[in-house]
This record gives sequence, C-alpha cells and structure tokens, in this order.
Amino acid sequence: MTSTARPNDRAADQVRPIKMTRNYTAYAEGSVLVEFGNTKVLCNASVEEKVPGWLKGRGKGWVTAEYGMLPRATHTRNRREAASGKQGGRTMEIQRLIARSLRAVVDLDVLGEMMITVDCDVIQADGGTRTASISGASVALADAIQSLVASGKLKKNPMKCHVAAVSVGILGEHALCDLEYVEDSAADTDMNVVMTEEGKMIEVQGTAEGEAFSRQELNQLLDLAEKGINDIIAVQKATLAE
Amino acid sequence: MTSTARPNDRAADQVRPIKMTRNYTAYAEGSVLVEFGNTKVLCNASVEEKVPGWLKGRGKGWVTAEYGMLPRATHTRNRREAASGKQGGRTMEIQRLIARSLRAVVDLDVLGEMMITVDCDVIQADGGTRTASISGASVALADAIQSLVASGKLKKNPMKCHVAAVSVGILGEHALCDLEYVEDSAADTDMNVVMTEEGKMIEVQGTAEGEAFSRQELNQLLDLAEKGINDIIAVQKATLAE
Amino acid sequence: MTSTARPNDRAADQVRPIKMTRNYTAYAEGSVLVEFGNTKVLCNASVEEKVPGWLKGRGKGWVTAEYGMLPRATHTRNRREAASGKQGGRTMEIQRLIARSLRAVVDLDVLGEMMITVDCDVIQADGGTRTASISGASVALADAIQSLVASGKLKKNPMKCHVAAVSVGILGEHALCDLEYVEDSAADTDMNVVMTEEGKMIEVQGTAEGEAFSRQELNQLLDLAEKGINDIIAVQKATLAE
Amino acid sequence: MTSTARPNDRAADQVRPIKMTRNYTAYAEGSVLVEFGNTKVLCNASVEEKVPGWLKGRGKGWVTAEYGMLPRATHTRNRREAASGKQGGRTMEIQRLIARSLRAVVDLDVLGEMMITVDCDVIQADGGTRTASISGASVALADAIQSLVASGKLKKNPMKCHVAAVSVGILGEHALCDLEYVEDSAADTDMNVVMTEEGKMIEVQGTAEGEAFSRQELNQLLDLAEKGINDIIAVQKATLAE
Amino acid sequence: MTSTARPNDRAADQVRPIKMTRNYTAYAEGSVLVEFGNTKVLCNASVEEKVPGWLKGRGKGWVTAEYGMLPRATHTRNRREAASGKQGGRTMEIQRLIARSLRAVVDLDVLGEMMITVDCDVIQADGGTRTASISGASVALADAIQSLVASGKLKKNPMKCHVAAVSVGILGEHALCDLEYVEDSAADTDMNVVMTEEGKMIEVQGTAEGEAFSRQELNQLLDLAEKGINDIIAVQKATLAE
Amino acid sequence: MTSTARPNDRAADQVRPIKMTRNYTAYAEGSVLVEFGNTKVLCNASVEEKVPGWLKGRGKGWVTAEYGMLPRATHTRNRREAASGKQGGRTMEIQRLIARSLRAVVDLDVLGEMMITVDCDVIQADGGTRTASISGASVALADAIQSLVASGKLKKNPMKCHVAAVSVGILGEHALCDLEYVEDSAADTDMNVVMTEEGKMIEVQGTAEGEAFSRQELNQLLDLAEKGINDIIAVQKATLAE
Repeated sequence: MTSTARPNDRAADQVRPIKMTRNYTAYAEGSVLVEFGNTKVLCNASVEEKVPGWLKGRGKGWVTAEYGMLPRATHTRNRREAASGKQGGRTMEIQRLIARSLRAVVDLDVLGEMMITVDCDVIQADGGTRTASISGASVALADAIQSLVASGKLKKNPMKCHVAAVSVGILGEHALCDLEYVEDSAADTDMNVVMTEEGKMIEVQGTAEGEAFSRQELNQLLDLAEKGINDIIAVQKATLAE
Repeated sequence: MTSTARPNDRAADQVRPIKMTRNYTAYAEGSVLVEFGNTKVLCNASVEEKVPGWLKGRGKGWVTAEYGMLPRATHTRNRREAASGKQGGRTMEIQRLIARSLRAVVDLDVLGEMMITVDCDVIQADGGTRTASISGASVALADAIQSLVASGKLKKNPMKCHVAAVSVGILGEHALCDLEYVEDSAADTDMNVVMTEEGKMIEVQGTAEGEAFSRQELNQLLDLAEKGINDIIAVQKATLAE
Repeated sequence: MTSTARPNDRAADQVRPIKMTRNYTAYAEGSVLVEFGNTKVLCNASVEEKVPGWLKGRGKGWVTAEYGMLPRATHTRNRREAASGKQGGRTMEIQRLIARSLRAVVDLDVLGEMMITVDCDVIQADGGTRTASISGASVALADAIQSLVASGKLKKNPMKCHVAAVSVGILGEHALCDLEYVEDSAADTDMNVVMTEEGKMIEVQGTAEGEAFSRQELNQLLDLAEKGINDIIAVQKATLAE
Repeated sequence: MTSTARPNDRAADQVRPIKMTRNYTAYAEGSVLVEFGNTKVLCNASVEEKVPGWLKGRGKGWVTAEYGMLPRATHTRNRREAASGKQGGRTMEIQRLIARSLRAVVDLDVLGEMMITVDCDVIQADGGTRTASISGASVALADAIQSLVASGKLKKNPMKCHVAAVSVGILGEHALCDLEYVEDSAADTDMNVVMTEEGKMIEVQGTAEGEAFSRQELNQLLDLAEKGINDIIAVQKATLAE
Repeated sequence: MTSTARPNDRAADQVRPIKMTRNYTAYAEGSVLVEFGNTKVLCNASVEEKVPGWLKGRGKGWVTAEYGMLPRATHTRNRREAASGKQGGRTMEIQRLIARSLRAVVDLDVLGEMMITVDCDVIQADGGTRTASISGASVALADAIQSLVASGKLKKNPMKCHVAAVSVGILGEHALCDLEYVEDSAADTDMNVVMTEEGKMIEVQGTAEGEAFSRQELNQLLDLAEKGINDIIAVQKATLAE
Repeated sequence: MTSTARPNDRAADQVRPIKMTRNYTAYAEGSVLVEFGNTKVLCNASVEEKVPGWLKGRGKGWVTAEYGMLPRATHTRNRREAASGKQGGRTMEIQRLIARSLRAVVDLDVLGEMMITVDCDVIQADGGTRTASISGASVALADAIQSLVASGKLKKNPMKCHVAAVSVGILGEHALCDLEYVEDSAADTDMNVVMTEEGKMIEVQGTAEGEAFSRQELNQLLDLAEKGINDIIAVQKATLAE
C-alpha cells in the first residue's frame, strides 16, 4: 500500500460494492447475506418467545448478537473457537458491539417479552467484518420483526430506524472510507462508526494503530463515515423495498 | 410421514438434487459448497506445511476434518458451540467420521509432511449433513491436492480415488435413500454408508432408532446406498471436470 | 501379527473367555465386572427417581451411559480426562453408543419417570472395551431393573431382551471375531456389532482402517458377529441365572 | 440524578480528586495505586526478559495488560472470574483497550526482546475503572521502564510520552467529565477517550446507551476530555517528579 | 537461611508486626486489610439474603470463602487464574480451609437463611497468606455480622468467638512462629494451626517438606502456635474495640 | 452412631481388615488393590522416562499422584469429574496430599530424570479413601521402583522407607481409629495422619467438623494413629514379602 491508488480504483470516500441477499437461508425469521466487496457475512435473526432470566417479568424484550468466523474465512486458517473451548477477546468485543448497535434502534418495551438473537457468521473476510455485520444484521432484524408484525405477534413495530456501520481510517496521509484488508492492516488509525439513518451516532470507536491522531483527522474520518453510512443505508432501503 | 410418498415425489432409491460449487470462497486451497436438496455445507480444505506433533519426522502427512453447524442452520436455533465452551458429542462423532473417510483415500506417505484440514460448516441443515459433508469434502480435498501438484509441491498425487457418502433408512416398511430431515426423524433405522468410487466400503454406521433391523433389511439398505453413492460420485466427477 | 495363528490358539470365530461377576461393588443397583480375556470393565447401573429436564412431565423414563478409562488401563498411561478438563471425542462416541444400545432394549414408557445411568469404567484394556461395556452393561441394567420390580417401584419389567456386542475385523486375509488389542491395532477393517438376543441388529459400525472392504467381506464379518454375540448372550443368561 | 448538580459540587468539566501512590506494593518493577475519587485501582507493571512465541527472534518487545475486579469492589458482590472459569467479555474488552493504549506510547523496537505486563486490579469501583487503569498504568509502566534504564538493561528509554484517559458523557442535557458510578449508570452517552500528553488521540470509544448523539455533542465531549486528560497528565507528572 | 538469626531480629516465638485496618473498602459489609509484616491481604465479607441451593428451606445459613492472589503479589508474576480458566489446587485447598475455619465459629442455625462470603485477596505475599487470611477474615466476618445485628436483621449474634491462625515451622534445628517467605521456603516442616480464642484447635495441618518430624517437634510447634495465636487474637480484639 | 459400639465390634484402636493385592492390573509398573474394610482403591504406579518441564536438566526425578472416584463408588451417584469439566477442590486436595506423602519417602536425586505417577482410583468408598490410597500407593510405588532396579535402570533404590496413613477421629466422647463412613460423617473431629515406618510424621491434618478440639484430644488421636499406622505398615511389609 505504498501507492496512493486504492484497489479497484476506488475513490477515498467510496464504499465497496455492497450487496444484501435476503432469505439466504430458509429457517431463520430474518436471513441476510451481506457482501462488502470480498467480505461476506451471513446474518441470521432468530426470534424466541422468552427473555434472559434477569429480564423476566418486566414486560421488556431483548436483542442480542453473536459473531463467529469460519476457520478459513481468512488467508490462513484460524483455530475454530468451538475447538479451542472459548471465544476470543476480539470475538466478544465484536459481538457486544453488534448487539449494542441493534438494541439502540429497537424499543424494547414495544418488543415485549421476546428475544431476538442475530448470528453474524463470517464466510469470507476481507476487512470490515464488524461493520458489514451490523449493516446486514439491521436488515435481518427488520425482516424478523416484520414477520412478527405480519403474524400479529406484535401490534406495533418496535424498530425505530435503520442502523449501519462503516470503517474509516488514515493510511499515510489519506483518509479512506470502508477499508479492505490490505488497507486496514497498513492503516495508522482505524475507526468504526455506527450511525442511524437520521445521522446520529451510536458508536464511535477509533484506535491509533500507529501514530496518534488529531481532532482534525478525527473530523475528517467522521465526515467520510457519514457519507459512507448514507450509501449503505440506501442499499438497506433498496434491499428491503424489493 | 404416514403416507408412502416422499416429498417432491422422489423415488425410494433417488438422491436429492445434488449441486457442488467449487471455489465458493476465495482463500482456501479447496472450497466447495455442497447442496443435497436443502442441506447446504461449505467445505474448505486448508493446506499447512506442518504435521501434528506426534507425527513429526516420520515423512508422512495427515488429513483431518472439523465440523460445525451455524446456530440457525436448523428450524430452531441451537446454542453456538464456541459460546458453550465445547464441541458436543455429536459434533465430535461426525468430524471424526469425515476425517477417517478422507484419510482412507489419501496415501499419507505420498502426501509427505503436510497437513490438510477440511472444515465442513453447515449453512442449512435438512438431514444428511454428515454425508453431504463427506461428499463435498472429497472434492475440496481433490482441489487442494491438485493445487499442490500444480505448484510442484507434490510430485505425485496422493489421492487414490473419490469418496462419497449417503444416508439410507427404513421408514415404516420402506427402505429409502438420502433421507431428508422429515424422513430421518421418523425413521426406525438410519444408516450412513461411505464408499469409494470402486464400490468398496470405508464406513458403515447403522443405528436402530426404533425397531432393531434384520440382515435382510441391512442388505436392502446397502443396495440403496451403493446406487446413491454412484450417483453422487457422478456429480463429483462432473464437478471436477468443469 | 504376521502368523495366521491367534494368541492362545483361538479359532477365528471364537470369543475370548468371558466372565461376568455380579454385585462387584456394594452400592450400585446393578454392578457387573465384565471380562473379555484381559479386557476388564466395571459396569455400575444407578437408578435415580428423576428424568433429564427436557423429558419432565412426559411420563417416560431415560437410560443413559457414561464411559471412562482409568489412566493406566492401557500399556502406557493416558492423561486423566478429569484433569485435562474434557472428555475426548473417542470417549463421547463410545458412551453415546452404549447408551443407544441399552435404550433399544428398554421400553421407556413402561420405565416411567426414572433415569438409569450405567457407568462403564475400564479397569484394564486389551481391545474391545466398548463391546465388553455394552455386554456387561446389559446385565447390570437387568439387575437394576429387577431391583425396581422386586421393590414394587415398577409393576412391569420394561426390559425387552438382552443386548450384547462384539467386535469383528479383517486382519490380512482372515476375518476374526472379538479382536484383542494386538489384533485390533493391525486390522484393516474393524467392525462393532450390537445385537439383541433375537438376532436383530441395533448398531453396525464398520470402519476400514486400512483397505476398504467389500460387501462379501462385510457379510463374512456379520456372520462372525452373529455367532459371537450368541455366545456372549449365553454367558449373560448363565450369569443372571446364578 | 435528576438535579443538575454533580455529587460533591463538582463542575461539569472537573475531574474527581486524583491520587497516585507509587511503590504501593514491594515486588513489581512499577506499582501504582491510582484513585479517581472512590475508584481505586492497583496497577502493577512486571518485566520479563522474554516475548510471546509469535514475536520471538524479531528484536522487538511487547507491552500487554490484564484487568480484574475484586469480587466485592462494587456495591453487590460479583462472581469471581477465576471461579466461573473464564474472563467475561467486558473484562477482555477493557484489558485489550489498556494494552493498546500503553503500546501506543512505547517504541517496541527500542524496548527489545522484553515483555512488560501491567496488571490493573480494581480494589474499589465507582465508575471510570478503565480510564483510571490506563492513567495509573502509564505511571507504573514509566517506573518499570525507568528501572530497566537505571540497571543498564535498556540503553535508551522506549517510552515516548505519557498517556492518560478519562470518561465523558451526556446526562440529560449536560456534558460531564469523569463520570462517577451514579452518573455513568444514568448517562445517555458514555465516551472513553485516551490521549497522549501531546494532545493526540489514541482511542475514542463513544457509545449511545440511550439516545444517539450528534456531531456537535461529540465535539463537546471531546473538548471536555481534552481538558480532563490534561489535568490527569499533570498529576502523573507531579507523581513521577516526587 | 543458614544463620540462626531471623530477619528483623525477631524472636523464635514472635509473630510479625500485625495490623488490621477496618472499613478498608467502602461497599462490603465487613472489609479488613490485614498485614502480617509484608504479607497484605484484603478480606471483604459480603452478605447475601439467600443460601446455596442444597441448603434451601432448612432455616440454616452458610459461611464460605474465596481466596485469590493478585498476579504480582509475589516476587515473580504468576499467571492470572481467571485467564488460565481455573483455580489451581493450592487456591482451592486454601479457600476451603478458610471457609471451614470461619464456619467453626458461627452458629449457622442462628444465622438463618443468609450467606456470608469472605473474599481474601492477597495484595502482597511474603509467607503465611492463608493464616493472615483467616485472621483478617474473622474480623471482617465479625463486622458483617455486627451490621446485621445493628440493622435488626439478626436478633442474636451467631458468632461464637474469634478465630485466628498462624504458621509455625522447623528450620534446621529451630522451631519458629509465623514464618515469612524466606523462612518458609527453607523450612523442613511447615504447620498451619487455626485456633479459637478459647485455645481450642479447629485445624492443624502439618507437612514435612524435608525431614519427617517427631511427636516432640510437633508439640514444640503447637506450643509456639498457641502463643502466636493469642497475640493475633489480642490484635483482633483491639481492632474491633477501636 | 449413638451407641458406643463400633460396627463389626471393632475396638476403638483397631483398623479395619486390610488387604493389599499386588499386580491387580497387568500393565502398570506397580499395581495394588488396597482394601480397608469396604473401601477399595486401585493404585497404579506408572513410570515415565521424562520429568515435568520445570524440572528438566536438573538430574532429579519427580513423584506425583492423581486421585479419582468412580461415579458410583458411593451410596448415591456423583457426577463424573471428566464430564463436569474439572476436578473438584476435594479431589485436588487429596491428590496433592498423596503426592507429598510419597515424595517424602523418595530420594528424588537418586531417582534421576524419571517421573512416577501413582493413580489412585476409588472403586468403592466407605470412609478413609485418602488414607487407604496413600497406604496402597506406597506398595505400588515400591513395586514400580523395584522393577526399575531389577531392569538396571536404577543402580540404587531411591525409596527410603514405607509410608502409610490412617484417619482417626473423635465421635462423641470416643477417640477412634480408621473411621468408616458412618463414623466419619458423625465425627466432631477428623484427622488424617501420614507416617513413615520409622514413626515420624509426614502429614497431620486435623479438622474440627463440630466442636473444636483440645491439645489433650489431639494427643489421644496421635497415639491411636501411631498404633494404626504400625498395623498398616505390617500389612505392607507382609504384602511385599509375598
């Protein structure tokens, strides 16, 4: 990544080609295969008519998420977490982020005593798996909730708006949107931004991998993120309109 | 399943529509999405230039397999094995079966000090996931080995022949080939057969879920399995000929 | 194992000397030390007046099994599974097989809301520990059930018939019954057969360790298994008649 | 927290009274008890003359961190993680954040093949344990590194500058610096900011617990964080000058 | 430890300077930092209005203890037990000893259906952490129980008397009281004695690390322990009288 | 246990009938089934020509022990530790005690770089399993070491003397030797004593389960233990003389 050109001649503020395939599997109440370029994540939303023990009897629902990566989603094989006997710190961090992002757009009181779990399983990883997961999970969640409304199990739709996420970063002197793996691994600063369709932020997680970053750089990255997320939300809407 | 007709008017000795998509993911040395009707398994073969500790320095290679099921591959969500902290007995049983089946068709001395791991991850489960896994894994393994031959890392191809598997069972008075979930869960006897393209058996695992079975019934099932496996091997060959 | 003679001049279709000692320990409702030659397994059947959570309130009982091997049951010491923090795949596979075999001969509706767990712990291992376990467990189970009938806790005996198992295998050109360790480790094909006293099969698990096997060889092995199991069932009956 | 006044009449931009006690324990190469009001964290830096396996032979060092909370650091007792058999997701998230923050201010090439682990153990928790941990760990790390320089094991000091962290949040209509527990649990948005003494950012992690937040609110929070961190760095410098 | 003089010119029958700080942390019902010379243990007693499942409905209470050591409490860093996924054998042994010692001085019937857990976390370890833990835990327990009496939750004080513990040992030809680390690691025999203020024994655990010990030596050690424990109990009483 | 008579009219200072069967299993270098009345423990000593990592290259050997209880060794079935995923605190405590007791009678320098592991597996438990384990393990260890001497792998026998153990206790007003289960569970004080044949103590572990005990009671118990251990050592010697 020494040259200033991005792979496939992407512009600095351009997200990768995004594709969302609904009903990718047959049984989940919401099932979306989301692709951000070569990153492919299967997001399955499962509805259960129960809530975790600590929430019982309070009339509220719960939305949670789990994240996993197939062992050979990446260039070299990673050890299967089920075989090593625990989920790693990175996995836990990511699935907590996805879950918080989704809960931020659902009115849990309106959901009532139901639990929706969105499983985000990475089939192929080329950078940005957590932001692709959030963006795809929002659509899977919308489908699952819609099925509850359609069947009469919910009188009112508890989902307040769409939520999407993108990674942005500084690579040398360039601020770039939606980093792919080769960019991500060379970036000085890497930031994941989660926003609603109303342009408000739910999560901002910026990390200086190399050089620390300035307020000005932070603002540049947030500008890029805002544009990118708007593009992703447009895809979400088009997908759900199909 | 009280009527004698099979779903989709399948004949008793007919396997489901089988489809194998090569290069389904981009990074694995062999990557096959295998579909037996609604059962879909992603088989990724990964090559590593090392062997397990107990095999070091003996000039031999190793072939192994791991099996997993996405939490919502099935009608209701199963707990993620990585989250529960261990692989269940069923998972272990299946991945050991896949691994033995693949090793039976590879000359480990010719492979030399290399290890191939085939990950079989079930995207959607409608019965027969272990037999679909073996059948798809054989093609992924062939591709991975071919890449080693092509790159000159192997002088000679260590794979002796194709291997495929099918489930057969007795449902009421009928012996059926390639059970789908609704049939499998109602069957009295369930048998998984693994065979080479030469018609020799590698594994035979028959279980009486309800009534015990006779030698005659066993023979009937083996006849069905032989025919079904020939049909699957034809698909394997056609796929590799593409 | 290059010569064609078996250790101790056993005939090809001859099982090892089999001995079953009832009431081997004092507390279990059924307790049998089973010996197949030098293979020794202690089978303790424990009755509990409860069922697993998923079976509660359905008026049915449950029969399950656990398998373990003392660390120095074998020629070299194996790591204690309790110390390594989990049961290995082989252990899980075996205990699932024992449990299925036992359930196949018990009418769980007649058993009612009770659970019987048969622990099979290998004191000394010289091949065929899983088949010895099943054969001994059947007697321990019979004793435990008989105690429930005798005490009036069961009105009717839910055990339908005896069940026994034997391993058979192909070693060079010879099909042999009840392999001991030195034979087992050299065999090309190894098959475990579980049958009822009525000659019907409950489980057939054949594995080609070396060469794949033909239908003809399979039939030869099943003939041997049938004879061997009849011999074992004769010992079971004699033991229970004491 | 309905009134607009903060506990102890703190101003909105005012950090709690901060105290850092060096050499709190006797054996660690760097040992600091850091107090942010009622939050108390013991930060022990341990030097080992080895690196993790994956870094061996590359002439570089490593800095890592672990985080724990005594079971009764909080208002009600939490289960001990050692007893429950694993570190929770929150713990992992926090210790990864601390470690990244520390590595950002150390030149690992200059450190050479040594590893420094900073253990941050929370003695008492009243909000902001992760930011107190980072702020105290920076001083413990400085002491540990200074001991290496003093003993001649390091020719040059690899620590580039101080690093400190503070939490900021929006509570109702007020942006507040250094939230204590009662504020934190009522906040709509909670953000942790990690900065160097040069005013550059290393980590920014903002989370909307309730309402999503705007760019303007984000900027307000960053202003508060900058001021707070400068105050903390002043304490760090004074502490190290003692 | 070849010379006969003890560090700091302690007499053979002299305990180290002992200090107990009550209310060391703010939230626990009883919180004591106990120091035996350089050994420092934080003892927090937590009251919960529930009992373990196996004790429910029997009108009795329960007192238990957990023990942990901060990774850098010792000269070299130990692996964090929460990270390694289990408590070691030594930890379990110690926490079981502390719990038994405390239960011996509490009338569980008078306590009623409440559970008190005393967490003993070693901040700095210089020998005798288990005896310091017991001695400090007794005071933390007394404070927790006193708070229940003061609030009216208990009509009667269930604590029968104080309990304290000391280690004694034989080093060369000398019997010594309250071994510090440098003595402990060189001792032939190491004994931990737990006694009530009435001079009766609750636990005696003597171990020959090197040479086996005689009855006469055992008696010598018990004499030393009796004196030492009386000195510790005097500190407990003075502390509680403050 | 309200009457003063012991089961089977045992005298207060009388151990149960003790039986040790050598070569109980075929493969271990030392294998002893030890019976103390109805308590039966299988002690297998395994020799390995290696030492634990931390002892490598120091020319010293190691002796260790592991303890387990078959699930139905007791009146009601206990959960299998391998299935629950960890060894309990009681198990760890006991196996550490056995190991220390054995190491106390072996000169590890003379043993050289070899490791002997003694597995003590309880077949039937009627009180005193840890003391029976130590007493039987001493004989299994002697046999394993003798085999090393006989084969010339050891020039000199590193075992210094026999070691045996017995439990003693106070039940009401009576001090009793070698408690069986019904006595043990009713005892106020329970003490395990480990001694060499020279009458010196290796371990003394006394616990007040009910009332605390006095110095005088302790002495009474030690007198009983001394006599009991002499009786056990006589059986050890007779067994080894066979």
